[in-house]
Amino acid sequence: MTGVHVIGTGLLGTSLGLALTRAGWTVTLADASPTAQRLAADMGAGTVSDPEAPAVVVVCTPPDVAGPMIVDALRRWPDATVTDVASVKSAVFEAVRRNVGRPDLDRYIGSHPMAGRERSGAIAARADLFTARPWVVCSDEDTPPERLAQVVAIAEAVGAVVTHLDPDFHDASVARVSHAPQVVASLMAAQLRQMPDEGVALAGQGLRDVTRIAASDPGLWTQILAGNAPEVATVLKGIRADLDAVIEALDLRDGALRTLAGAIAAGNEGHDRIPGKHGQAPAKYADITVYMDDEPGSLARLFADVGDLGINVEDVRMDHAPGIMLGSVDISVLPAQAHALVEGLTARGWWVPESELEAAAEDPAGGSTTATHDSPLVGTTTEEGQR
Amino acid sequence: MTGVHVIGTGLLGTSLGLALTRAGWTVTLADASPTAQRLAADMGAGTVSDPEAPAVVVVCTPPDVAGPMIVDALRRWPDATVTDVASVKSAVFEAVRRNVGRPDLDRYIGSHPMAGRERSGAIAARADLFTARPWVVCSDEDTPPERLAQVVAIAEAVGAVVTHLDPDFHDASVARVSHAPQVVASLMAAQLRQMPDEGVALAGQGLRDVTRIAASDPGLWTQILAGNAPEVATVLKGIRADLDAVIEALDLRDGALRTLAGAIAAGNEGHDRIPGKHGQAPAKYADITVYMDDEPGSLARLFADVGDLGINVEDVRMDHAPGIMLGSVDISVLPAQAHALVEGLTARGWWVPESELEAAAEDPAGGSTTATHDSPLVGTTTEEGQR
Repeated sequence: MTGVHVIGTGLLGTSLGLALTRAGWTVTLADASPTAQRLAADMGAGTVSDPEAPAVVVVCTPPDVAGPMIVDALRRWPDATVTDVASVKSAVFEAVRRNVGRPDLDRYIGSHPMAGRERSGAIAARADLFTARPWVVCSDEDTPPERLAQVVAIAEAVGAVVTHLDPDFHDASVARVSHAPQVVASLMAAQLRQMPDEGVALAGQGLRDVTRIAASDPGLWTQILAGNAPEVATVLKGIRADLDAVIEALDLRDGALRTLAGAIAAGNEGHDRIPGKHGQAPAKYADITVYMDDEPGSLARLFADVGDLGINVEDVRMDHAPGIMLGSVDISVLPAQAHALVEGLTARGWWVPESELEAAAEDPAGGSTTATHDSPLVGTTTEEGQR
Repeated sequence: MTGVHVIGTGLLGTSLGLALTRAGWTVTLADASPTAQRLAADMGAGTVSDPEAPAVVVVCTPPDVAGPMIVDALRRWPDATVTDVASVKSAVFEAVRRNVGRPDLDRYIGSHPMAGRERSGAIAARADLFTARPWVVCSDEDTPPERLAQVVAIAEAVGAVVTHLDPDFHDASVARVSHAPQVVASLMAAQLRQMPDEGVALAGQGLRDVTRIAASDPGLWTQILAGNAPEVATVLKGIRADLDAVIEALDLRDGALRTLAGAIAAGNEGHDRIPGKHGQAPAKYADITVYMDDEPGSLARLFADVGDLGINVEDVRMDHAPGIMLGSVDISVLPAQAHALVEGLTARGWWVPESELEAAAEDPAGGSTTATHDSPLVGTTTEEGQR
């Protein structure tokens, strides 16, 4: 009884096969589509086979058929540990529990690698898809430790970071950090459909960020939302209640401004909850803006100069000017290094705004007067005029 | 009759003074706060003065007092052209029109530079704040051409890109591309407030992007939302109608899936409307992911190598691994350069996923099998499992 059997050779299944094969594991593959399973095998994800007694079966089908496939696997391989990668966990577990009794049920351990790409299918697979991504594993007190260890070993073999969560907790959490944000981004983007070009042309980085994930696949997301419907509905109803209050406040009756300010302030609080780099607490970084012509090699020269200064870049963000060939790069560094960065880049002829230089010069430690933000990935830039 | 008089020396007024002074213009400054106006003058934004006959007065106060200040300026300097920088235009114009008749009213030309920072006040001012940003100018058939030319000259002197728009069109547009997105981001972020840490820890880049602007200032945004209340309400009601439909569809009755898929698909369409780099039509770029240790100089070495390859970087995005010191950088390049980039970086020892290399190798032109997205700033990465 050896090896991992992967059922479903789409993006996740094929990526898993590639990663496990590379790590020296024996992987067999199956897919309802002969073409898809052959493609995955040709890419090096494993061998197409109907194994006698796999140690672990990983169901990587779309979420809406994960339940039946898990049930089938539990029946077909009575000694195997069975797991899956569906992004909803309670509904899948219930589907299994309705059809499989204990002790066989204990052989199923749900998991959810929080990894994906904008492309789908075996052709988009990557051996490093799971590298450094969270991999949620759902076990309970009845889960045999040796089977749990098998699932954890797979996740760790492909470079993921294992997190143990209760299925209900998982579903409630992803509804809030992933599923509801998808709906919100899509609904906001939908409002741009009928706009005249001259209006959409006023879009700035704020809109781009809010609506980036609105480009996601409707087919996949319909399955995800349907599979986690009650939890998603709970979050969306909370948003709707707040939205109702904001819309009502836009009548500008007495007390309205307090409601508007309260909504934005509540968003500040929620925003502050998002963890920073490497899962640590949000850290303060100093942001330095550098302007440059949009020509080959500009960015290379900039980062070569930053490297010469011995300064580690915590985050980088590019912005592009509308209508002209000029770009800017925001570089986040530790506040204590901001002064050296501004001075060093200016000395090397880079166009760093003078006020950044003054701010850093006033405070050689660079801590308090240089722009800081909460996390390397959540710096704020408004397109609105500010006093 | 010469010079520009800036009323209100906050972020925008001081930045404007700095930029115009640098461009050789004569700038005088005034602010209700003696400290603020002195600080702006000390920073080099102009001289504190009560000018006899300024050619142009720019009202840079907070939006809720812009109307009265414009009226005051029109009365006080009967030959001056008066403009402002408030982010709402119809309400300000109405406030002026109620108090000033023609022909004096024709001396007011509203404008809105679409620029800002996460920090406020004179200390945050930058001479390049307006560089390459849109600057909306609102004129009509009664606007004297020579006065319009004065306002345009100011915008161009500070490096902005002038766009002529009707005030109502402006307000309806910014409600959709700026004000409603702010509300949506804030309401989404507010849902994170009460989450356990283990749940928020599952947050990925999607959530970070959707909620980035939720860190914005409540005081400023209360003024902006109140100043454009009817237009913002129109957009938010549209979103609420769609949200109601999605929430209802989460009951999963007959036809529900079509509603869910339709909402995501409508978001796809709206997302596709957002213009790409340099205001051009959305362009397709190829995204290449490179993994690296999180240590000083890594990014510098990477971009030095990219520069050696003679490849122009269209966009760059960093992502950080939760819990471990490993980062990845997504580099967007023209599809025709993707193959050379992957091969060149791999040859130089960079960890570029093998499947990226294969994809590029299969198609030397790099056009169709390498990941592409619609714009350098709106690449899609989902954290969800995909088939």
